[in-house]
Amino acid sequence: MDFASPLPAYLVKRYHGWKATSFAENKAWYRHLAEQGQHPRAMIISCCDSRVHVTAIFGADQGEFFIHRNIANLVPPYEPDGNQHGTSAAVEYAVTALKVAHVVVVGHSNCGGVQGCLDMCSGHAPELEQKSSFVGRWMDILRPGYDRIKDLPDHDSQRRALEKEAILVSLENLMTFPFVKEAVAAGTLTLHGLWNDIGSGGIEQYDPDTNAFHPV
Amino acid sequence: MDFASPLPAYLVKRYHGWKATSFAENKAWYRHLAEQGQHPRAMIISCCDSRVHVTAIFGADQGEFFIHRNIANLVPPYEPDGNQHGTSAAVEYAVTALKVAHVVVVGHSNCGGVQGCLDMCSGHAPELEQKSSFVGRWMDILRPGYDRIKDLPDHDSQRRALEKEAILVSLENLMTFPFVKEAVAAGTLTLHGLWNDIGSGGIEQYDPDTNAFHPV
Amino acid sequence: MDFASPLPAYLVKRYHGWKATSFAENKAWYRHLAEQGQHPRAMIISCCDSRVHVTAIFGADQGEFFIHRNIANLVPPYEPDGNQHGTSAAVEYAVTALKVAHVVVVGHSNCGGVQGCLDMCSGHAPELEQKSSFVGRWMDILRPGYDRIKDLPDHDSQRRALEKEAILVSLENLMTFPFVKEAVAAGTLTLHGLWNDIGSGGIEQYDPDTNAFHPV
Amino acid sequence: MDFASPLPAYLVKRYHGWKATSFAENKAWYRHLAEQGQHPRAMIISCCDSRVHVTAIFGADQGEFFIHRNIANLVPPYEPDGNQHGTSAAVEYAVTALKVAHVVVVGHSNCGGVQGCLDMCSGHAPELEQKSSFVGRWMDILRPGYDRIKDLPDHDSQRRALEKEAILVSLENLMTFPFVKEAVAAGTLTLHGLWNDIGSGGIEQYDPDTNAFHPV
Repeated sequence: MDFASPLPAYLVKRYHGWKATSFAENKAWYRHLAEQGQHPRAMIISCCDSRVHVTAIFGADQGEFFIHRNIANLVPPYEPDGNQHGTSAAVEYAVTALKVAHVVVVGHSNCGGVQGCLDMCSGHAPELEQKSSFVGRWMDILRPGYDRIKDLPDHDSQRRALEKEAILVSLENLMTFPFVKEAVAAGTLTLHGLWNDIGSGGIEQYDPDTNAFHPV
Repeated sequence: MDFASPLPAYLVKRYHGWKATSFAENKAWYRHLAEQGQHPRAMIISCCDSRVHVTAIFGADQGEFFIHRNIANLVPPYEPDGNQHGTSAAVEYAVTALKVAHVVVVGHSNCGGVQGCLDMCSGHAPELEQKSSFVGRWMDILRPGYDRIKDLPDHDSQRRALEKEAILVSLENLMTFPFVKEAVAAGTLTLHGLWNDIGSGGIEQYDPDTNAFHPV
Repeated sequence: MDFASPLPAYLVKRYHGWKATSFAENKAWYRHLAEQGQHPRAMIISCCDSRVHVTAIFGADQGEFFIHRNIANLVPPYEPDGNQHGTSAAVEYAVTALKVAHVVVVGHSNCGGVQGCLDMCSGHAPELEQKSSFVGRWMDILRPGYDRIKDLPDHDSQRRALEKEAILVSLENLMTFPFVKEAVAAGTLTLHGLWNDIGSGGIEQYDPDTNAFHPV
Repeated sequence: MDFASPLPAYLVKRYHGWKATSFAENKAWYRHLAEQGQHPRAMIISCCDSRVHVTAIFGADQGEFFIHRNIANLVPPYEPDGNQHGTSAAVEYAVTALKVAHVVVVGHSNCGGVQGCLDMCSGHAPELEQKSSFVGRWMDILRPGYDRIKDLPDHDSQRRALEKEAILVSLENLMTFPFVKEAVAAGTLTLHGLWNDIGSGGIEQYDPDTNAFHPV
């Protein structure tokens, strides 16, 4: 594999800084985690976006959260077809092996993936409609959400509503997994939807009573 | 969606703490990121494992790294078959839209996904071989790596070698994506492989010259 | 221009070392920066002093910080008189064109410029009071700071206090620039003052609540 | 000064990393530098641009280089008019107090300041021609350079030539300072001009024999 390269120096420097400070101060805990395994309390499903790190927002320390990150924090529907479903594998592992108590779907403002979905569904991004577009096919998961918001009057309200649909569609799809539905029914798992506004730092959560998002 | 629940109080408390401290101190930067978009330098592909947060190891602040996390930090081969490939979508977005300069695959010790793959491939986990097992089908990506390490003498050396194969197989698969291969050839993208030992805090990087992993 | 000379060999050697190592490992990132432009998060205003490199203290990699360095890290007041103000130009470019989120003024111990100001203001350096002294005229910016510390009992405490005044006067002067004041009011820019003790490696930051400097 | 803010957490983290590694390994040297003062070998005049850190290119360790950074690495002509000239003060201090052996002017590709000068001088940036534009007035220093390159056939060659003029004009202006001219004549100071290509990592130096820039 002669195509691989040594680590850029700035990452080496960052690593040595962490090793000499955070790691050094917590080495007993790291040793414990290595020997006793992980027992995270929650699974968090969030976006790859560099501006939304749930480790920061929830002050995640090592061992607390099992975190899956993909484009636009999407969960596809349950499809046990023998193909490779990375998100479904992560959900399965968290719920059936780790037995987490919560799955939290965290969406956010200014999402490039959601914007791409809006462009594609409204006919402005033919390149995303091609079979070979991985981003386009991935955003197909959100098409049911687009149908629910497409009659909103302007682009900005459509985009913001679609960002929230990315959370709601994922929550709906989570419930199509038998092991999720059973755990929720048994009271051993709760599901949560959050939307983060990058610029203001605000977080709104989905409230099932009003079927709307409200500030936390 | 009456199955969704309000956010657990401990997460609300964590969020308010972050909002009043880290966010408050950096609100100008968050505003900038919301208005100017993200320009991350690197994509990091790491595991969902709660014990390995690259945001900690590399002191990642908002805006610096585009992070995809899945079970066992795997990248599947290039398959533009029209199906949903979340990892491939993340790689496509990072390389072709964000034009990141580096893709870093970060594996780790004590990986539950890799352990499952070892059990499955050695015939000790028939439940993972079922068509309906998402984790099993996802770990199929690592089967070519198992073939290369299966003759090692004992279980511990097999597991450690397979953790590193999860990094190498992913690097190999990354190069099957035409846009990755082209960017690497053009010198606008470099690929890197790292393995983190949770207990000791050590990091080893793949060195193409010796075809082995060495401490950073 | 026959007065110019070829580069000293030691700098040629240093450059070739960098090119073969740091640059080679990061060439994809340098290419990215050249093609996509810079998006630095912060402007840092520090002293020319060879002992205080903020690139070291903050592990600055290429692209992260827009750095202005002058004698004693001073910012003059807003004076749009048509004359050449290099520091004001740098501040204008950082805030209005690059839209940085933070401006950090970094002062330090053992500052030759501050010592010169103290000597001049206390009547012990007539050569700095001459019209033709560029250092003297530049240090005039700090005279309002001298007035606030001149009654301290001894020379050492006066010097240390004046080093901190160099930071405070600069922060005050920054706020006289309309575009700085507006950005601070709008929450898109924050201002920070730091003092570095060269010998101990300590850093103190200005705390507006106590109107004093405290260790970070 | 209630407008000042505490240091953003990411800078605090960076600082603690540096303190625990680079500083800890070199504390004897830092102590020495604090007690014995600085004795830098060279002054470097470079741009504020976040993509060009001479501390990286020349592997600058603490104590080696006295570094002045301003927009477009410009030195104005000698003007002892009693006004505040930050660049002239830095040159005066380096040459007459520190008695550095070299002054190196380092320009670079993709320079926003030089681009602004080109736009202004060619009549495409009236906002930079206003008296109140600090960037415009600062770039006036480069107008003599524009006159020498304005007849080049296309914009790209004009821009690249003007980037090199920013170095040559500065070298010429350095020689208008009596103390610089004397030190050069006495053989105690040499002047050097470099141009860095950000994307390729190349460095060209001004060669007085051919009156052109050649790769180092």
